[in-house]
Amino acid sequence: MAEIFRALETAPPGHEETLKTILDALAFNGDGLVPAIAQSHVDGSVLMLAWMNREALARTLAEGYACYWSRSRQMLWRKGETSGHRQRVVEVRFDCDGDAVLLTVEQTGPACHTNRPSCFYLAVDGDRVRVISQAP
Amino acid sequence: MAEIFRALETAPPGHEETLKTILDALAFNGDGLVPAIAQSHVDGSVLMLAWMNREALARTLAEGYACYWSRSRQMLWRKGETSGHRQRVVEVRFDCDGDAVLLTVEQTGPACHTNRPSCFYLAVDGDRVRVISQAP
Repeated sequence: MAEIFRALETAPPGHEETLKTILDALAFNGDGLVPAIAQSHVDGSVLMLAWMNREALARTLAEGYACYWSRSRQMLWRKGETSGHRQRVVEVRFDCDGDAVLLTVEQTGPACHTNRPSCFYLAVDGDRVRVISQAP
Repeated sequence: MAEIFRALETAPPGHEETLKTILDALAFNGDGLVPAIAQSHVDGSVLMLAWMNREALARTLAEGYACYWSRSRQMLWRKGETSGHRQRVVEVRFDCDGDAVLLTVEQTGPACHTNRPSCFYLAVDGDRVRVISQAP
């Protein structure tokens, strides 16, 4: 864990660092990525988990709409650029050891590529897994 | 994406697969891990993001309490085993392409090792990042 995150472990509420200090210390993985969770600002539901490299995170912060790194397409992915299902960013948070991002978003339309509201539509029930929402 | 997840894209609500089918198809990364989000059953807050290998996931499902893979210690990590800050699992979900897990949990005590309720206590505000909760 980067030293700055260790120092922040005991920092009081209201303590501030520069954004650059934190961005420089984030624990991007070997592919230069961190996982980013998108949570609905409206109902708190977890919409999806995607990945960001430093540029995707910078664009998200600069533009106010979620931008990820598409691992399948190996390119920046402005969420909703083609579908219109954009995510307006309400808040961006980092976790205690700087290896995960939490976005609170206003989601336009469905978050999932299946047109379901959330990507997490497969729920375990005993020794079965059940589809729990409708693909329109 | 594994074929089963592609098939489930258009499956109706209530459609079921065996748990084993899904576990066998999950997209563990090169280290054999998938990211797992823990969300509070009580207030919907996102508590933390950690990692699971197949065994951690199997133990979580069998024991009903969250078990992760500690990347720093390279061992199974029954969350709260020493601190008592356990996570009783209310629901386990997988996402559309089987590369992320969402746990809904009843958290005993704080989720974060800093004793804050959530690990996501660093919030961006313009060009600053602010600590938003108290470490007791």
